Amino acid sequence: MSSNGDTKKILYVQTHGDDDPARAATPFYLATTAAAMDCEVGIYFTMKGPTLLRKGAPERIQIPRAAGGGAYLRHFIDQAVDLGVKLYVCQPSLDLHGYTEDDLIEGVEMIGGAAFNDMALAADAVITF
Amino acid sequence: MSSNGDTKKILYVQTHGDDDPARAATPFYLATTAAAMDCEVGIYFTMKGPTLLRKGAPERIQIPRAAGGGAYLRHFIDQAVDLGVKLYVCQPSLDLHGYTEDDLIEGVEMIGGAAFNDMALAADAVITF
Amino acid sequence: MSSNGDTKKILYVQTHGDDDPARAATPFYLATTAAAMDCEVGIYFTMKGPTLLRKGAPERIQIPRAAGGGAYLRHFIDQAVDLGVKLYVCQPSLDLHGYTEDDLIEGVEMIGGAAFNDMALAADAVITF
Repeated sequence: MSSNGDTKKILYVQTHGDDDPARAATPFYLATTAAAMDCEVGIYFTMKGPTLLRKGAPERIQIPRAAGGGAYLRHFIDQAVDLGVKLYVCQPSLDLHGYTEDDLIEGVEMIGGAAFNDMALAADAVITF
Repeated sequence: MSSNGDTKKILYVQTHGDDDPARAATPFYLATTAAAMDCEVGIYFTMKGPTLLRKGAPERIQIPRAAGGGAYLRHFIDQAVDLGVKLYVCQPSLDLHGYTEDDLIEGVEMIGGAAFNDMALAADAVITF
Repeated sequence: MSSNGDTKKILYVQTHGDDDPARAATPFYLATTAAAMDCEVGIYFTMKGPTLLRKGAPERIQIPRAAGGGAYLRHFIDQAVDLGVKLYVCQPSLDLHGYTEDDLIEGVEMIGGAAFNDMALAADAVITF
């Protein structure tokens, strides 16, 4: 997340996964909004978060609405990525799920703990879900 | 959250709801403490958080204690609001629950993602639960 | 968390406990990494977090790995503490579990809400899990 001095940086963290679809869309929604505000935006997936980025998961996970007919996670991911939101995955958390990088959708960057800490320190806001 | 330059601003985020009473009181407790420290304090309710603010919920949700006899959520909300803590609800998250503004207790302000991001960027600390 | 002006401060918050081992190790892992980066690092345990610090728990909680054979929580705690990571427990959250200070492992400091808020305001990043 390099930037000039004026651009605000927001880092979201997603720790929940495909077992809790009601928590899946919000980080993408807020990240999309922040990118539309010309912030530099990243989402870091750790703990169960990487399950949302497994190939096939975005097309399968439907975001619940009380009225029914919620959109699929794919929609929220595409909106975010189209506006420049970067997706980062916690490398050690892949062991929890037995994933390799090939199991994840395109466009995800694997980073370690030090890179995450650096991003968090450089961000103007860190918002963990 | 307008302020002069000296007042510190803390924004808490509550993502859990009435299905997890052990997580219900802490944000109000910390927010009350922060307000007593003369901080400007808000709590933003998203994901399952708005269920805590549904009419009737604060009187029904008892905060568990190992020794029994925990206080009701109403007590913690009243303490916070009396000291000036502002309560904000994520507008899109109401769809998840089928709520309208009328379903919520008095004194809650509905805001969108951009307003939340602005608050997070302006805060001296953002603490998400 | 006193420091000179150059040292970066990171405060992690652990709200989950022994009922969710997949969330137990990450805060310690990141805190260890941050301490190795010469940051001043604390982890604050609230809500269900103190159950991870109960005497006997670190030796009993095995961090899951898809491949099996995950390390015990003790390993992650020892790594963090050896590098100077400070462990803080939310005093009111002990009531939830019926714990007293004597129920917790050595080296944990009990603090109240005001001290936590001060730490969060002084930190360069607050990361809540």
